[in-house]
Amino acid sequence: MDKGKMIKLGPGAVIGILGGGQLGRMLAMAAAQLGYHTHIYCPDERNPAEQVTDRLSRKCYTDEAALINFAKQVDVVTYEFENIPVASVEILRRHVPVFPSADVLRVSQDRLQEKDFLNGIGIDTAPYKAVATEAEAQDALEIIGFPAVLKTRRLGYDGKGQVIVKKMEELPKAWAKLKSHEIIIEGFIPFDMEISVLAARGQDGDIKCFDPAENIHKNHILDLSIVPARITPERRQKAVAIARKIAAKLDYVGVLAVEFFVSPSAPIFRVNEIAPRVHNSGHWSIEACPTSQFEQHIRAICGLPLGDTSLYGRAEMKNLIGDEIHDMDIYLKDPDANFHHYGKMHARPGRKMGHVTRLLPTVK
Amino acid sequence: MDKGKMIKLGPGAVIGILGGGQLGRMLAMAAAQLGYHTHIYCPDERNPAEQVTDRLSRKCYTDEAALINFAKQVDVVTYEFENIPVASVEILRRHVPVFPSADVLRVSQDRLQEKDFLNGIGIDTAPYKAVATEAEAQDALEIIGFPAVLKTRRLGYDGKGQVIVKKMEELPKAWAKLKSHEIIIEGFIPFDMEISVLAARGQDGDIKCFDPAENIHKNHILDLSIVPARITPERRQKAVAIARKIAAKLDYVGVLAVEFFVSPSAPIFRVNEIAPRVHNSGHWSIEACPTSQFEQHIRAICGLPLGDTSLYGRAEMKNLIGDEIHDMDIYLKDPDANFHHYGKMHARPGRKMGHVTRLLPTVK
Repeated sequence: MDKGKMIKLGPGAVIGILGGGQLGRMLAMAAAQLGYHTHIYCPDERNPAEQVTDRLSRKCYTDEAALINFAKQVDVVTYEFENIPVASVEILRRHVPVFPSADVLRVSQDRLQEKDFLNGIGIDTAPYKAVATEAEAQDALEIIGFPAVLKTRRLGYDGKGQVIVKKMEELPKAWAKLKSHEIIIEGFIPFDMEISVLAARGQDGDIKCFDPAENIHKNHILDLSIVPARITPERRQKAVAIARKIAAKLDYVGVLAVEFFVSPSAPIFRVNEIAPRVHNSGHWSIEACPTSQFEQHIRAICGLPLGDTSLYGRAEMKNLIGDEIHDMDIYLKDPDANFHHYGKMHARPGRKMGHVTRLLPTVK
Repeated sequence: MDKGKMIKLGPGAVIGILGGGQLGRMLAMAAAQLGYHTHIYCPDERNPAEQVTDRLSRKCYTDEAALINFAKQVDVVTYEFENIPVASVEILRRHVPVFPSADVLRVSQDRLQEKDFLNGIGIDTAPYKAVATEAEAQDALEIIGFPAVLKTRRLGYDGKGQVIVKKMEELPKAWAKLKSHEIIIEGFIPFDMEISVLAARGQDGDIKCFDPAENIHKNHILDLSIVPARITPERRQKAVAIARKIAAKLDYVGVLAVEFFVSPSAPIFRVNEIAPRVHNSGHWSIEACPTSQFEQHIRAICGLPLGDTSLYGRAEMKNLIGDEIHDMDIYLKDPDANFHHYGKMHARPGRKMGHVTRLLPTVK
């Protein structure tokens, strides 16, 4: 039994959210604004999302009995990160609708399946090849060229599980580092800019996209998102068209993030990766759009009409990583800054502690 | 010991909120955005605020042991409605700072003290007289004239505890209806418009006001708030100046609502009442201002700098009372509408179920 098709839930219904990080937290707050209850499922003590929900299962993602118990207490399930085991979602979907679907999750968890899917529908990516042995890796590198990136097929994020290889002599060390995983080799694409498009697709097939954001990273972690991205309007439309196509082909329900490299020469757009969830590069939508990415995701999974995603004006979102959160007072005094703190206790280096969105002067 | 003076609390601190209605709910969400925990103290089962907090005391407001236990678990206490017993706040303040203060609460709970205070600082109100007997009421009515309003001194809201008297013959019936309470008689002021000003005062004495809102009632319940109020800019400044004066004279900390009648002849502004809390007529500030009234209140009580209250543009807030909440789908499809549902299960007549704020076209 797959209960994944066409539901409509009204206020008072309970939305189950797998994962208790800041994305779950902001989803829970958006759900509350629309009158929904949320039930957070997360193994972590003191997770950010549990502070804004009244229902919590502090259980492991692989605890089948707990998953079934959770499924019976909620009306729909979604997730805030894509590293949930597909098997867990398969268990849940027998009892309750899950959006985005297990099929989508499967594709997005595996860089190989993801790239096969994208190229299969005519969307460009970096050149890539899955390799099982060091010898295969050597053959692949001879075709793909240097620099190239060895990546684990699964469970990578924020630059983790990746090694750049600039020449063949560097392969053995890189291989040794990652060889306990399944590996994919990707060509390194020269690019001018990284952008992302947050696309939302409703259960009725309606698709609405947010404006492309320009993303600037620091130490492999998103530092700034700027909207609109500083590319031509025609290119913005092109990026949005690609994101729409992906959402449609996946029969997607919810908010989907599509990350692109923008290259100086054709193909201008190559998809770097997709994430089946709300995304760090869309946080500006809370203040800069009539409907935030979080509300949009809740609308989609509950079968409500999608909301307006037009941009009030220019906006810039800065992540507050580690100690940067201690600049709180500066942001509180800035009339253009909207400060968000995720409620995490310890500002460890590299940890996303909050963000601040500035609506830039033309907004007013 | 009064711990009510000058504290500064950072994220991670726990804000205790007395009351679990929609105001407490929206305060809790604003607190969470800034990284604070909230602890709701409310006797009601399934109150709207408990859905967005992780800490709850479902206790009576007069339960001394429960109040002390609550006080020991939080870093500051505030309240979302002014009918908390002053004695309860007196208990709490011995253990933890409470904002606004017990003194403010005392004044605002009693229409007589409130009007004495306002007139004492040179601010106009309707003519009024406290009366203890029907004979005193008759004497007072002869001076004040008709129509007049008999009101209970305490615990009135949304037109409850009020009887209009158009001629002396109507007094006995009105008296019989209210006589178990302490009564105040107020003159009925002809007015063109009702407006309100939300003023915020920080612990450092800084005061920032939101733009005056024009308020339109239906069946004694707020139906619409429109900002800016459709009065001249000079009059808007005058109303704001009065609200500032009240906040300063009260040594107030937090957000204070001041309701005015705007009369066709002098005195143009008379204060109808003050409420020591965030207020229904300021809900538009969530979308229409850089800082909402809820965030502003949290900033004030935690000793943070007050935020910018300038208006992005015109806005209109409509309350969704009773069955009006069922128009949800209409609002969800309106690109200018921001829909809020308070998570209440039953749409009883007269019950505030949600609101919708429209940012009007000039905003964009």
